[in-house]
Amino acid sequence: MAGKLKIGKLVVIGVGLIGASFALALKRARAVRTVVGVGRTRANLAAARRLRVIDEVQADPARAVRDADLVLIATPVGQMGAVMTAIAPHLPPRAVVTDGGSTKQDVIAGARRFLGGRFRRFVPGHPIAGTERSGAAAGFAALYHDRLVVLTPLADTDQDAVRLVKRAWMACGARVVALDAREHDEMLAAVSHLPHVVAYALVNALAQRSDAARVLRFSAGGLRDTVRIAGSSPEMWADICIANRDALLAALDEYEDALEETRAAIEQGDAGTLRRLFAQARAARERWLVKKT
Amino acid sequence: MAGKLKIGKLVVIGVGLIGASFALALKRARAVRTVVGVGRTRANLAAARRLRVIDEVQADPARAVRDADLVLIATPVGQMGAVMTAIAPHLPPRAVVTDGGSTKQDVIAGARRFLGGRFRRFVPGHPIAGTERSGAAAGFAALYHDRLVVLTPLADTDQDAVRLVKRAWMACGARVVALDAREHDEMLAAVSHLPHVVAYALVNALAQRSDAARVLRFSAGGLRDTVRIAGSSPEMWADICIANRDALLAALDEYEDALEETRAAIEQGDAGTLRRLFAQARAARERWLVKKT
Repeated sequence: MAGKLKIGKLVVIGVGLIGASFALALKRARAVRTVVGVGRTRANLAAARRLRVIDEVQADPARAVRDADLVLIATPVGQMGAVMTAIAPHLPPRAVVTDGGSTKQDVIAGARRFLGGRFRRFVPGHPIAGTERSGAAAGFAALYHDRLVVLTPLADTDQDAVRLVKRAWMACGARVVALDAREHDEMLAAVSHLPHVVAYALVNALAQRSDAARVLRFSAGGLRDTVRIAGSSPEMWADICIANRDALLAALDEYEDALEETRAAIEQGDAGTLRRLFAQARAARERWLVKKT
Repeated sequence: MAGKLKIGKLVVIGVGLIGASFALALKRARAVRTVVGVGRTRANLAAARRLRVIDEVQADPARAVRDADLVLIATPVGQMGAVMTAIAPHLPPRAVVTDGGSTKQDVIAGARRFLGGRFRRFVPGHPIAGTERSGAAAGFAALYHDRLVVLTPLADTDQDAVRLVKRAWMACGARVVALDAREHDEMLAAVSHLPHVVAYALVNALAQRSDAARVLRFSAGGLRDTVRIAGSSPEMWADICIANRDALLAALDEYEDALEETRAAIEQGDAGTLRRLFAQARAARERWLVKKT
């Protein structure tokens, strides 16, 4: 890793929270010369330009990538196949393509199919960071600071392409780890996709009550934090749930078992079992989920 | 409400987060002369004394209440019956008793049974505030600032007792509302007790994996916020689940229906339904659960 990273032209396709933060972080690190933004929503791209997240707007992904050094696809995963189809014939040989999708096996399958001869230059990635907010205006340069970014390259992925993507994420302040795509999907189903499904369902259960407005007045910070991620993009999360269906259903099974065990103890008025289950959860949270500062 | 509130002697039975914060808030408002703390755990009471949460430690609740003006019972709800039995014969006629329990029908039933002739001086209460932390050291004077406190007095509760408790909570900075105890329990089952059960079960589902330590490395702020309340006191929450069993099981039914609807859409790969369910949740959260500042 000799020398300072300098990407000539970065193309961000999908300038939402993930794509905008990547661009901002690379700019702050002075690791990129020009950022071109591509997207479906003109107002969002205009905002990205105004906020200097991107330097240039390009409506046509094919034109945008023609002289790209690095392309980040940061759309919802359901749209990545179409994006890859559009850009594949226009990518210069040196260009490296990566993505920010929360699922990796389906994105890899799409890339193999739609990027064709460019597949070796594709480095599948997933920055494990985010907030419940969406859009370019939600992006910020520090989003990836000290966060994990998982790369899931394949045996035939070009090593220099992997190195470039790794260095770019490191320039954003992230810690980069390599994983098998299948293992990634299985683990993320448990620690990320399942909690989103749980949070959305919890809000829906409360919101469908005829007295929801009154009842929710009596909620406090506990509920608010528990369902924060139910503010996340519906489109993005619908795609993730479907892309990672099998692993997510397996994680849901385990969760429903745990919920059922709690329910049975409540039904039986079994305070001892409830205390044990809650104490076990508290200890696990303390061990693994309380941010050590 | 003429004149400034001045409570001569406040007895806090159970000097945890709730009791300690009540004492600290009243002290800061200069609305109390002396605070006596009663509890099971000597080290916690010693800490409370050292932190000036209480002025005096008294091991025996009967002795503590002999010249009390106001008694706050802030133990887990499962212990309140025993506390009431111990103090009832020793309460002076003027003393007002209140509690901080998260369930109200069971506490009222216990008070009717165990406080006997003093029942008219008992004002059932529930401050809707808290954090996931426990113990006297977790208390802070601002905990109740701008929070709701629900009082559920009965037709035969002395009006001057209700007034005193209301003024005390207002001196803590809280907004006080009166509710029927049954309605309180039903609403809190939905917005508070259910989310706690969900958070505990979610952590348990993840923690029971043989690879939990590795998998949880890949979690981010989303999971952390979702399960923050799984750090809450197991003893307190086991009591609440049992005390409010019927309402909680009804809320669990509604939640499991919402979860099942999401699960079915995932199984069927139905992106349209998932998008609709998630968008509905996002809109409801936005409307009711995002703190307006």
